[in-house]
Amino acid sequence: MSRPVLFLSDFGLDDEYVGICHAVIARLAPGVPVIDLTHGVAPQDVMAGAVALAGAVPFSPPEAVYLAVVDPGVGTERRGVAVEAGEAVLVAPDNGLVGLALVALGGARRAVVLDPARVSPWPVSATFHGRDVFSPAAAMLASGAALEDLGEGLDVGELSELMVGEPLVESGRISTTVIGVDRFGNLRLAAGSRDLREAGLDGDPVLELERAGEPIRLRRVMTFGDLDRGEAGVLIDSAGWVAVVCNMASAAERVGLRRGDRAVIGRA
Amino acid sequence: MSRPVLFLSDFGLDDEYVGICHAVIARLAPGVPVIDLTHGVAPQDVMAGAVALAGAVPFSPPEAVYLAVVDPGVGTERRGVAVEAGEAVLVAPDNGLVGLALVALGGARRAVVLDPARVSPWPVSATFHGRDVFSPAAAMLASGAALEDLGEGLDVGELSELMVGEPLVESGRISTTVIGVDRFGNLRLAAGSRDLREAGLDGDPVLELERAGEPIRLRRVMTFGDLDRGEAGVLIDSAGWVAVVCNMASAAERVGLRRGDRAVIGRA
Amino acid sequence: MSRPVLFLSDFGLDDEYVGICHAVIARLAPGVPVIDLTHGVAPQDVMAGAVALAGAVPFSPPEAVYLAVVDPGVGTERRGVAVEAGEAVLVAPDNGLVGLALVALGGARRAVVLDPARVSPWPVSATFHGRDVFSPAAAMLASGAALEDLGEGLDVGELSELMVGEPLVESGRISTTVIGVDRFGNLRLAAGSRDLREAGLDGDPVLELERAGEPIRLRRVMTFGDLDRGEAGVLIDSAGWVAVVCNMASAAERVGLRRGDRAVIGRA
Repeated sequence: MSRPVLFLSDFGLDDEYVGICHAVIARLAPGVPVIDLTHGVAPQDVMAGAVALAGAVPFSPPEAVYLAVVDPGVGTERRGVAVEAGEAVLVAPDNGLVGLALVALGGARRAVVLDPARVSPWPVSATFHGRDVFSPAAAMLASGAALEDLGEGLDVGELSELMVGEPLVESGRISTTVIGVDRFGNLRLAAGSRDLREAGLDGDPVLELERAGEPIRLRRVMTFGDLDRGEAGVLIDSAGWVAVVCNMASAAERVGLRRGDRAVIGRA
Repeated sequence: MSRPVLFLSDFGLDDEYVGICHAVIARLAPGVPVIDLTHGVAPQDVMAGAVALAGAVPFSPPEAVYLAVVDPGVGTERRGVAVEAGEAVLVAPDNGLVGLALVALGGARRAVVLDPARVSPWPVSATFHGRDVFSPAAAMLASGAALEDLGEGLDVGELSELMVGEPLVESGRISTTVIGVDRFGNLRLAAGSRDLREAGLDGDPVLELERAGEPIRLRRVMTFGDLDRGEAGVLIDSAGWVAVVCNMASAAERVGLRRGDRAVIGRA
Repeated sequence: MSRPVLFLSDFGLDDEYVGICHAVIARLAPGVPVIDLTHGVAPQDVMAGAVALAGAVPFSPPEAVYLAVVDPGVGTERRGVAVEAGEAVLVAPDNGLVGLALVALGGARRAVVLDPARVSPWPVSATFHGRDVFSPAAAMLASGAALEDLGEGLDVGELSELMVGEPLVESGRISTTVIGVDRFGNLRLAAGSRDLREAGLDGDPVLELERAGEPIRLRRVMTFGDLDRGEAGVLIDSAGWVAVVCNMASAAERVGLRRGDRAVIGRA
């Protein structure tokens, strides 16, 4: 019985890169289902990829093989890894990309360094390890290979960690960053409901987003429809992050923030 | 034997929303094939989603489960529904999104209101019913559940209807709107060959598109290649709609119209 | 046993065209896996489609059915064809789109002209042969039909060839064109490592890209990471083409070239 592959990358869909990885898996492991989580991660944005990947974990088949390729270091000395966590296994460059997903899966249990000599069916190019190393490794695992078939063991404590800026939580105030903007213009902040509680802001019906000039009033709501048309608000989004949103409009445009920007939310 | 799911939304592919819905279906109904009709529907544009969905019906597996999510009202009191029509079943918010598809399928036979308590395997978020309600419902139906397993019956006469502006058809003149512009710049109008006949324009070799200033001459053709390079024309498109097109160029740019604009076609 | 379909087009993913072709194959050949190579080929750019298709061949299932639709001539007298090469078969308009893939597969063995009367399950529209002719033909072949079931034989010598500008190779200098720019801004040139050898440039550690004003220095590298941040270089890309790249930046922006532009590389 084959396991499904859940595939995330920053390759985009304008080129044939994603399709070739699919073709590789179909060639090496016929019949294995491959699900595209997204390939719209901003180029080389490991943090955004990590957030998207972790958001899928609670809703995916527990036995999934995650194939994640956001790989600014392709062709350098960075290693590729396969990591077991829960019933799942994750294949990725060792750059922190799977860090949040590992947390969501209860932590890494075992890991190996991908050995191209055991994994790659053809000579490895310098620039496309998604095709030559990661997809073949995922195909092997999805069709039943054991972790140790792919390379030498690696202490899970040696896996690269993701540098996530922890939010600065004070009484009545959270300083954090925008970790994502979706196509509707919703702004996802690097903070969760626990941070709101710790800042004592969890019961406030209205918060404020600091801004040069005038702060923006954010009504605390459950969903978009609780806001008036065009009104900005704040909610816990479907992945558990604090999000600034607008009803029927783009919060990103309304408040003038972009991914990576600093965002400070406080008592109104 | 599982039924294929045909999935349409306005989620876009830049984020992980579509991928998570695929993951949900793979988790709840392993082996069910999921086909993406499109996720490029303009955000919250129910009309455009309805047109795209209906265009797929005649060419899709008759027993398909349609999963359609364009949902400006997520989190409000709008209900989710599952509707039987022909051999197919459609899962969507009750906002008219499936209206044109139901017509193409011969009309709604039975309907239920989706009951999250019967459908959702986890607590329902306020903002992502595609993941929490609609995808699980589609997974159940694709793997053999009966309609009544999903919720209480609903009189099909109570389903929300889509507000489609009927074209105004006079002798020698049709006033209508642009309901879609595709990537090639073809303009799809809310009118069909029947409207051309009723306006007495069906045999005219040349029509005119009204415009402030000078009208634009449209040769009536069967296909792009019947036009000279860059020439504008009018044809019945592959889904049966009247379309304004250019050969090797964008009609939208040539005539200066966008989706939602009024368009008047008449005798040259 | 069904064969996988590998599908490439210039339809984009914003509209429902690709999804409808998937639906057609699911309707006519249930259970056949369909892999999207890419649908982001620039509209009507046969050359770009040919390059992308050929790049997938060495990594795809040998028995694949390639479905390729970049079809500026839809509705005109251009014919549709199915061509056997190696263990694979390719379905496409006869406009050179499969030319480079045929080379990669060892050359065409047999071909037929697609006969809509044998292939199309419904009347053929004038504008969407992807749906009405090519997808049904691919579905037939994927589920076991013989080539001759689809139409009359065609001498493979009569297949349209792709007009690829051969690079002009002199001693110490290659004049060629940019045949592709990917989402990372890498520039792919219509030249390969053989051309570098013939020009005697294969051992040069540094090359120059000619430009009005000052030439640009290109270090010859194996991969992006061999370059300093922002530095431009030249490498053989994962598909075997000469490529101009930048580390952590867009080479297209850095050197000011776009697809179709002339590019001259020579001794520094």
